[in-house]
Amino acid sequence: MIRVLLVHDACLLRSALAERLAREPDLEVFHTPWGAARRRLGSVRPDLCVADLDCETGYALAPLGELKTTATGTGTRCPLLVLASAHRPGLLRRALDAGAVGFVDKASVPEQLLTAIRQVAAGVRYVDDSLGFGFLKAAQMPLTQRELSVLTLAAGGASVAEIAHRLHLSNGTVRNYMAAITRKTGARNKVDAIRISLGEGWV
Amino acid sequence: MIRVLLVHDACLLRSALAERLAREPDLEVFHTPWGAARRRLGSVRPDLCVADLDCETGYALAPLGELKTTATGTGTRCPLLVLASAHRPGLLRRALDAGAVGFVDKASVPEQLLTAIRQVAAGVRYVDDSLGFGFLKAAQMPLTQRELSVLTLAAGGASVAEIAHRLHLSNGTVRNYMAAITRKTGARNKVDAIRISLGEGWV
Repeated sequence: MIRVLLVHDACLLRSALAERLAREPDLEVFHTPWGAARRRLGSVRPDLCVADLDCETGYALAPLGELKTTATGTGTRCPLLVLASAHRPGLLRRALDAGAVGFVDKASVPEQLLTAIRQVAAGVRYVDDSLGFGFLKAAQMPLTQRELSVLTLAAGGASVAEIAHRLHLSNGTVRNYMAAITRKTGARNKVDAIRISLGEGWV
Repeated sequence: MIRVLLVHDACLLRSALAERLAREPDLEVFHTPWGAARRRLGSVRPDLCVADLDCETGYALAPLGELKTTATGTGTRCPLLVLASAHRPGLLRRALDAGAVGFVDKASVPEQLLTAIRQVAAGVRYVDDSLGFGFLKAAQMPLTQRELSVLTLAAGGASVAEIAHRLHLSNGTVRNYMAAITRKTGARNKVDAIRISLGEGWV
C-alpha cells in the first residue's frame, strides 16, 4: 500500500480527488489544506506527498520548503509530487528548489496523476511533458535574488522608503532595482512588473 | 435526470469532482474549462450550470456575465450555481450581479454541493451559511463604479496618463481617484490598494 497525503486548499475539490485516488486498491489516501499540512505530515507519515502549488489566498505562495523540512525532520523519506501549471513558471522553480521529484500538470486527467504517484513512490522522477514550456521559462528567470526581494516587498504594498529600510539600502538603490526589474520583465511600469511577476508566481 | 455542466479550469480536479457527481443516479454530468464554457453551454443545454469563480490565470475574473447571456440567448432557463470563498467578496458580488441563485463554499464537502444542486434544480435558491461574512463584505464595498474602472486599469499596469486617456479624464482627476481608492481600501499606497482589491476579487 502507498500512503498518500494530498495537500490542496479547497475541501470540495480536494475531497473529490482524494476519493478518486482512494478507489485504487494500492493507495491509502489522506488529505489536508495547506494550513494543516505540516501537522498532518507528522501524524500521517505518508510515503508520498501530493501538493497543489496554488494556495487558496490567490497568489499566495504555498509553504513548500516548510513541508520539505518537516518531512526531513520527522526522519521519514517523503518524496514530494506537485500539481502545477505551465503558465506559472515561478511556482515550478520553487518546487524544484524545494526538491520536488514529481510534476503533474493540473490540466491532465486523474489517471495521469495515478501513474505519477506510482512512479514517484517507486523512486523514479516524473515530469509531465506539457510542463516543458513552464520549465523553459523557469530556467530563463531574469531576476537576481536581490531583485526578487525588492519585488516581493513592493508587491506586498511597501513604499520605496520601507523597502530601503528593510533591506538596508538607499532609496535611490531601491529605485534603480525597480527600474531594472521593470525593464527585465518587459513591463510598462512598476505596477505592471508586479502584476506580471505575481501572475507567473515569482513573488 | 438533472443535466449539470461543471465549469472549472484545472482538468485534474474538475474531472474528479465531475466523476463524484456523476455517481449520483439523478445527475448527468458534463464538464468544461472556462475558455470553452459558452460553447459547451449551447451544445449541452444543461438544467444547471455549476461554475467555480476562480479562473486558472490566478486573479483573472471568470466571464460569468457572458455565461449568463449565452444561457439566456439559447432560450434555455439555466440557473447558475457558483463555487465561492468567503475571503473573496468581490467575486461573490459579481456572481450576484450575474444572477447566480446558488452559492456553495469551496471549503464544504461534495455532499453539500449535491444538496445545493438538487435544491437549485428544483427552483429554490441555495446559500452556504459559511459565506455569510463574505456577503457582508460584498454589501459594504466602498468603491464607486468609476473608481473600480480606474482601479481595474491601474491593476492591469496602465499609467496615470493611459488611464486618463482611456476614461476621458484629466491626469489630476485620475490621481484624485487613486487617492480616494487608497484611502477607502485602507491601503498604504497605490500598489497596496491594487494588491488588496485583486485579493478580494474586486478587479
